[in-house]
Amino acid sequence: MTGPPRILTENLRVVNVGLSSFADPLLAIETPVMTPAWRPAAGGNEVVGMALARLLGDAEVDTANREALLRLLASEPRLIGVAPAQEAMPMLQGRALLHAGPPIEWTRMCGPMKGAVLGAVLLEGWAQDIGTAEELLDAGGVSLRPAHDAGAVGPMAGVVSPSMPVVIVEDARTHRRAYSTLNEGLGKVLRFGANDAAVLARLRWMSDHLGPTLSAALERLDEPPNLKNITAQALQMGDECHNRNVAATSLLTRLLAPKLAGMGPDGVEALEFLRDNNHFFLNVSMAACKLMAGAAERIPRSTVVTAMARNGVDFGLRMSGTGDEWFVAPASKVAGLYFAAYSEVDANPDLGDSSITETVGLGGFAMAAAPAIVGFVGGTVADATRHSREMRRITVGENPEYRLPALDFAGTATGIDVRLVLDANLVPVINTGIAHRVPGIGQIGAGVARAPMSCFKAAMLRLAAG
Amino acid sequence: MTGPPRILTENLRVVNVGLSSFADPLLAIETPVMTPAWRPAAGGNEVVGMALARLLGDAEVDTANREALLRLLASEPRLIGVAPAQEAMPMLQGRALLHAGPPIEWTRMCGPMKGAVLGAVLLEGWAQDIGTAEELLDAGGVSLRPAHDAGAVGPMAGVVSPSMPVVIVEDARTHRRAYSTLNEGLGKVLRFGANDAAVLARLRWMSDHLGPTLSAALERLDEPPNLKNITAQALQMGDECHNRNVAATSLLTRLLAPKLAGMGPDGVEALEFLRDNNHFFLNVSMAACKLMAGAAERIPRSTVVTAMARNGVDFGLRMSGTGDEWFVAPASKVAGLYFAAYSEVDANPDLGDSSITETVGLGGFAMAAAPAIVGFVGGTVADATRHSREMRRITVGENPEYRLPALDFAGTATGIDVRLVLDANLVPVINTGIAHRVPGIGQIGAGVARAPMSCFKAAMLRLAAG
Repeated sequence: MTGPPRILTENLRVVNVGLSSFADPLLAIETPVMTPAWRPAAGGNEVVGMALARLLGDAEVDTANREALLRLLASEPRLIGVAPAQEAMPMLQGRALLHAGPPIEWTRMCGPMKGAVLGAVLLEGWAQDIGTAEELLDAGGVSLRPAHDAGAVGPMAGVVSPSMPVVIVEDARTHRRAYSTLNEGLGKVLRFGANDAAVLARLRWMSDHLGPTLSAALERLDEPPNLKNITAQALQMGDECHNRNVAATSLLTRLLAPKLAGMGPDGVEALEFLRDNNHFFLNVSMAACKLMAGAAERIPRSTVVTAMARNGVDFGLRMSGTGDEWFVAPASKVAGLYFAAYSEVDANPDLGDSSITETVGLGGFAMAAAPAIVGFVGGTVADATRHSREMRRITVGENPEYRLPALDFAGTATGIDVRLVLDANLVPVINTGIAHRVPGIGQIGAGVARAPMSCFKAAMLRLAAG
Repeated sequence: MTGPPRILTENLRVVNVGLSSFADPLLAIETPVMTPAWRPAAGGNEVVGMALARLLGDAEVDTANREALLRLLASEPRLIGVAPAQEAMPMLQGRALLHAGPPIEWTRMCGPMKGAVLGAVLLEGWAQDIGTAEELLDAGGVSLRPAHDAGAVGPMAGVVSPSMPVVIVEDARTHRRAYSTLNEGLGKVLRFGANDAAVLARLRWMSDHLGPTLSAALERLDEPPNLKNITAQALQMGDECHNRNVAATSLLTRLLAPKLAGMGPDGVEALEFLRDNNHFFLNVSMAACKLMAGAAERIPRSTVVTAMARNGVDFGLRMSGTGDEWFVAPASKVAGLYFAAYSEVDANPDLGDSSITETVGLGGFAMAAAPAIVGFVGGTVADATRHSREMRRITVGENPEYRLPALDFAGTATGIDVRLVLDANLVPVINTGIAHRVPGIGQIGAGVARAPMSCFKAAMLRLAAG
């Protein structure tokens, strides 16, 4: 049986799935064979088991996955600019909004996403009050599409409207691009569904001042910030670049500060904002990850995951070999720590595009880099290390540039292989914030979510069938 | 026998030193007693052994050491300003210079320190060229004293001259102060003995521009930077605050940036300097550590170390109960990694006041916080963790605010007890840079040094005798 490349080259350790007699020839030559008490996630679904066994033994899939990993690793995300979303993304013209996760219609959206969509409608001036905004949305007067469809990603509700400034991340070699909004900070913010006057005022300041100021500062740099480099450094500095971004935010600020310093009061305000927002780099990290995941898209036969995204109702998965198709399951509950006065009954199910970081080996996959995060998402330092180790069982390989000190500088597990997820019966771990289900209350905790197994099964079956 | 407080409160684990019959009463009540095959470091020196046994059993020393640790931990270093050394330190008037380590006369100084002293003489305009400067020094025309005598510390040669800007660190409660120069960056710098025109030009820019600019920025802050807070954060971000300071430098820069941004071209240049110097925080860390160590000084009977400092020829130790007396031994060789083209034959013996960081539980004592540093000082991630664990054997307690993620957030080992160093036959580990022995070549490597045991023995004997 042909395993993924890492196993073959390091040490031959055979797992026999199927008839036990398959193992006999190997046992005859004294090669150890493990025959696990494996059962398909569906609980004995023969179709799934047979399809998986076939794909696990398919050398074409192995080759395609290696290619997916190589392309992902070869991408070189640079932060080349900041611009209004409607200038950066041709798709975002007229009354159009983007949202996090797989497609979802207005009526099915969760509370925080509805709040964010309403806020964006007000921000854009398509309605003057919430009531009118709701009527407009009920009447289908606003196009609502996943940010992923525009090469963009947004945390939590992930709403992007035409006038919002977005970071533009470009691959240094191919010039492909990916986008994300600017992080608003904590407290009452649009991404958690808040849409009051203060939230809209901050968003207007971001459009009118912060965005143009950052754009000008980036233009004045000799070369655009190398996001792979900043991420690699941040992993040595306690960030996992999803829920913890204080190091990367600080490094990026140090890089931009001399340019912002020459830009008058707007520069000062931008530096104050960067000083006070330890999560500023999150959205930049997400755009860089989207760019890297995008490099692995649409490789025929590849079972590598190219997107995991949540809209607060559904979890969606995209896989390289099945292109833009979303494989969807109900969004998970998040196991985590709640801020004072909140508990699980207040929590919205898993929400946001930020799991694009796990898709390329950061976040939960790189948790060993960020022991301090266990104080935030729960668990122990040993749990953090264990998550990073475990994720190595479900990936094609590792990222030699993203190293984890606590694992003796092993690279982060990268390139989730849908086959391995099913075979190991182990789903990706996702570090995430927890939103209150009522719009506008904001973040009420943080924790660890698990991607739902059924999406992986569905993706695998589609490839097996095709 | 009374052990240090940590041992007593956590679990009673008795080590019997001396007559084996001492253990009998404890064994009778089923308390485990370890009678190690201990021999004094001198190899059977009865005087040392007897004195140590007596001090180890001295409850007065225990009480004094607990007090020393409490005072050290209670100090709250804040970065309150930057000013010319001669304004900050009354001692530094006229033709006076400070240097690293214990006292040393001009003729005995090592190469890098001689180079730095000559550079400082030129910088201050006391001579116009190296030859004249040497004559002035040979004639005893310049007062040379340890920086420690002025409450200051300097890395490597540690030379402080009257016009140089120094950081002023003040205890929020007692208003005691400590000082250090501003870090010059890497390459050809005075602290490694370089004194050419470019080095002096940079020092003049630091006096004329960087110092006053940082001073003004600090004045504009609502409150002075809390250095304990920055250090505690940096320990969660891969710094050990001696050889690795990238996180702390970035955090401090983020704090100062909005103020520097409002200060014209000097502010821009200061931010460029902070952007390019990952070691900027080293000197600030050193001054904060000097302040903390100073809090533990001059407590009668205390065997807690209050300074470890190297002048490149001698290593010097100060102990709380023996006041300002230096206990001196030849400076050690540094075991480490050399930059390309250099080796141990090029290395100057251990140099600089930066071991004040180890004196209060940072640097080598906090190496578990900085796994990435093993790529710089040599060794493995496991070595780094082991050093931090081992140092717990020779300290009075730990610092609950300086936590090490890799040790499950245990505090750093703090308050080196000279008795425990001798009893465990384990000297402090010191992370350090390695200077070329020829002035001006600069840093040629980094590594781990060990404090010489004989200083600890001498200090202990002095206290025992007194």
